[in-house]
Amino acid sequence: MKKIKFTLISCVLALVVINMVILTVTAADEPPRNIGYGRGGRMQGGAVSERSKEPIQPIPVTFDYDTAKIELGKKLFFEPRLSKSGWITCNSCHNLSTGGVDNLPTSIGHKWLFGPINSPTVLNAKFNLAQFWDGRAKDLKEQAKGPIANPMEMASNHELAVDVLQSIPAYVQWFKEVYKEENITIDNVADAIAAFEETLTTPNSRFDWWLKDYDDKITDAEMEGYDLFKNKGCIICHNGFGVGGTSFQKFGVAKPYDKDTQTLGRYNVTKEEKDKYAFKVPLLRNIELTAPYFHDASTWSLSEAVKIMAEYQLGVTFNDNETDKIVAFLRTLTGDQPSILFPILPPSNENTPKPNRN
Amino acid sequence: MKKIKFTLISCVLALVVINMVILTVTAADEPPRNIGYGRGGRMQGGAVSERSKEPIQPIPVTFDYDTAKIELGKKLFFEPRLSKSGWITCNSCHNLSTGGVDNLPTSIGHKWLFGPINSPTVLNAKFNLAQFWDGRAKDLKEQAKGPIANPMEMASNHELAVDVLQSIPAYVQWFKEVYKEENITIDNVADAIAAFEETLTTPNSRFDWWLKDYDDKITDAEMEGYDLFKNKGCIICHNGFGVGGTSFQKFGVAKPYDKDTQTLGRYNVTKEEKDKYAFKVPLLRNIELTAPYFHDASTWSLSEAVKIMAEYQLGVTFNDNETDKIVAFLRTLTGDQPSILFPILPPSNENTPKPNRN
Repeated sequence: MKKIKFTLISCVLALVVINMVILTVTAADEPPRNIGYGRGGRMQGGAVSERSKEPIQPIPVTFDYDTAKIELGKKLFFEPRLSKSGWITCNSCHNLSTGGVDNLPTSIGHKWLFGPINSPTVLNAKFNLAQFWDGRAKDLKEQAKGPIANPMEMASNHELAVDVLQSIPAYVQWFKEVYKEENITIDNVADAIAAFEETLTTPNSRFDWWLKDYDDKITDAEMEGYDLFKNKGCIICHNGFGVGGTSFQKFGVAKPYDKDTQTLGRYNVTKEEKDKYAFKVPLLRNIELTAPYFHDASTWSLSEAVKIMAEYQLGVTFNDNETDKIVAFLRTLTGDQPSILFPILPPSNENTPKPNRN
Repeated sequence: MKKIKFTLISCVLALVVINMVILTVTAADEPPRNIGYGRGGRMQGGAVSERSKEPIQPIPVTFDYDTAKIELGKKLFFEPRLSKSGWITCNSCHNLSTGGVDNLPTSIGHKWLFGPINSPTVLNAKFNLAQFWDGRAKDLKEQAKGPIANPMEMASNHELAVDVLQSIPAYVQWFKEVYKEENITIDNVADAIAAFEETLTTPNSRFDWWLKDYDDKITDAEMEGYDLFKNKGCIICHNGFGVGGTSFQKFGVAKPYDKDTQTLGRYNVTKEEKDKYAFKVPLLRNIELTAPYFHDASTWSLSEAVKIMAEYQLGVTFNDNETDKIVAFLRTLTGDQPSILFPILPPSNENTPKPNRN
C-alpha cells in the first residue's frame, strides 16, 4: 500500500515538473508577438503604475494569434501585383525594415514619379485619429485603398487589382475563408491590409518601461529631456499612445511656416480657412528611424527638427543643451520593431493580367 | 529503504520523461532550416536511394546555424541604401516572396530604367557553374558586386555603398565581428551577401521526395512527364541539383533562334564564335514561380516554353499531351521556399550620404 502511495506521489510530482518544463520551454521558444492595442491582449509590467497619469501612455504588448485575416493582409502588404508595374508594394514606401518609412523626402512611385509629401510611418498608425497628413482617410482601411489607385504611387486601379487577385486560386480561397464571400472585393482587400497594419505597433520602448516604473531604463539626461518636452509645451500636441496623432495642428502657430507655403494640408479636406497649413500631428514613436522630418522633409536632423518646432510652434528657442536632452528623450521612444516572417506569394497564371511597366 | 528505492526509481523515470519532452518540444518548435549544400548539413530521407543514380539530385536539407555572416548578408540583401536612390535592394529584382525573381520581362532599375535581360532567380543560384546568363561572374560573390554599381540597376558605386555602411555604427560593428578587419570593404559586402544567398535553396520538392523513394509523392502523369523529359533529351542540359545551371548551351541548337538575335550571350565573355547565342542553362527548380521565361522573356507560358525548347533545342515537336505531362513534372520541382525573418536595419545618421533619386 505504501509502495503504491509513494509511486503515486512521485508520479504526480513528475507530472507537475513535466508541465513546468513544457511551459518554460514553450514560453522561451515563443516570445509574445504584438498585435496592437484593442485586440484582447494584456499589458505587461505588473500592477498599474503611478505613471499611468503621464500624458504619454505605454503601447500595450499584446499577442498575435496569427489569424487568417492578418496573414492574408501581410501577403497583400508585400504583394507587388497590386501595382500596375507588378513591382511596387505597400512595403516599398512603408518599409518594415526601416521604421515603416522609405527614408526619402517623398516616395518614389510608378515610372519613378515623386509623391507630393513625405510618407508617414505605418508603425503605430492605428493610434492616428485619421490617416494621411491631411486626415482625408478616416482609418487604415480607407487609407489602404488610396495608393493602389494613385497614378503617382502604385498606379493600378481597384478593378484591376481585384482582377489580379481573383485570377489566383490561392487568394480566392484565402478571401473566402476570411470573408465568407464568393468574390474578392477591394473593400476586403483594404480590410485585410488594415488588419495587418493594426498589428504593426512597437511596444517595449525604454520610455514605456519607465512608464511602467522601471526607473533605470532611462538616464538622467533623457529624463530631463522628458521634463523639458512637457514643460516647454511639446506634450500639448505630442501625447497619447503614439506621442502624436491625436489632433490636427497648424504648422506655424507661433510664426508663419515659410519653408513650404504650397501644401495646404487639412484645408484640402475641410475647405475651412482655419485649416490652412494644418496637418495631423505626426507620431514621435521610433522618430530616430524615420528621417527626413515633417510633411515637406525639410530636415534630416532630429535636432534641427526639434529646433524648428520650438521656433514655429512654441515661439521659443531651445539652446543646444536643451535640444540634446529632448533628442535624447525622443530616442527612448524606439520600441520593438515588428517581427515579420517574409510572406511567400502564390504564382500568377495564364488568367492573371500581366504587369505593365509603362 | 524500499521507500527510498521507489522514490529514486520514480525520480529517474521522471527525469527520462522530462528529457524526452524537452527534446520533443524543442524539435517541434524548431524546424530544420536550410542553408544549402556543402555547409555541413546532412540529407534527410534515410538510406541511400537506388534513385541516387538519377541525373537529377535532391537538394540536401541542411541546417541554418544563423551565423553572424549570414545574418549580415541578409540585412545587406534587403538594404536599400546600397542603391543610389536609397530605394532599390537585391530583393527588388530577386524577390524572395516570388520565387527569387520579379516576374517581369526585364527588371526595373534606377530612374525606372529597364534592364537588357530577364533577371534569373537567386534561389538555388549556388548550383550554377557561374552567374549571370553569360556567366561573366564566376560565383555569387562576384555577382553581388555587379548590380550595386550598374547605372541601370542600383546605380550606386562601390565606394559610395561602402561609405554609406561605414557611416552606420551597427554595420561597422557587425563587419568587424565577422571579418576582423578595421574597415568595411566591397569585397566583404559581396562576401556576406553571397553567404546569405547560398542559404537560399529549396529542398523538399515533391520530386526530391520521389528521388528519396517516396513513390506516392508524384503522380503517374508526372512520372510519365519525367520519363519524357529524360527520353526526349531535356535532361542532357537540365540535370544536377538545380536541374540546370551545369553548362552553357547555344539557344538554337536544332534551329536558329530568331526571336532575339541581338543578345550574344556567352560570346560577350569569351569572344569566341561558338559562344554566340550561348547562355547558361537556367535552373528548372521552382520554374512554375518564375515566369516569364528565357533570357528574353519571350513567353509567360510554361507549356509554350517547353514547346519552344523542343523546337529550337531538340528539333522535335511535343504534342499537347506530352507537353502537359512534362509541365506536370516540372511543377513537382517546386520546393520549400526560404523562411526569412524580415530584417530590421539600423538608421542612417548625419554622416550617412543622403539618397539621391536623380
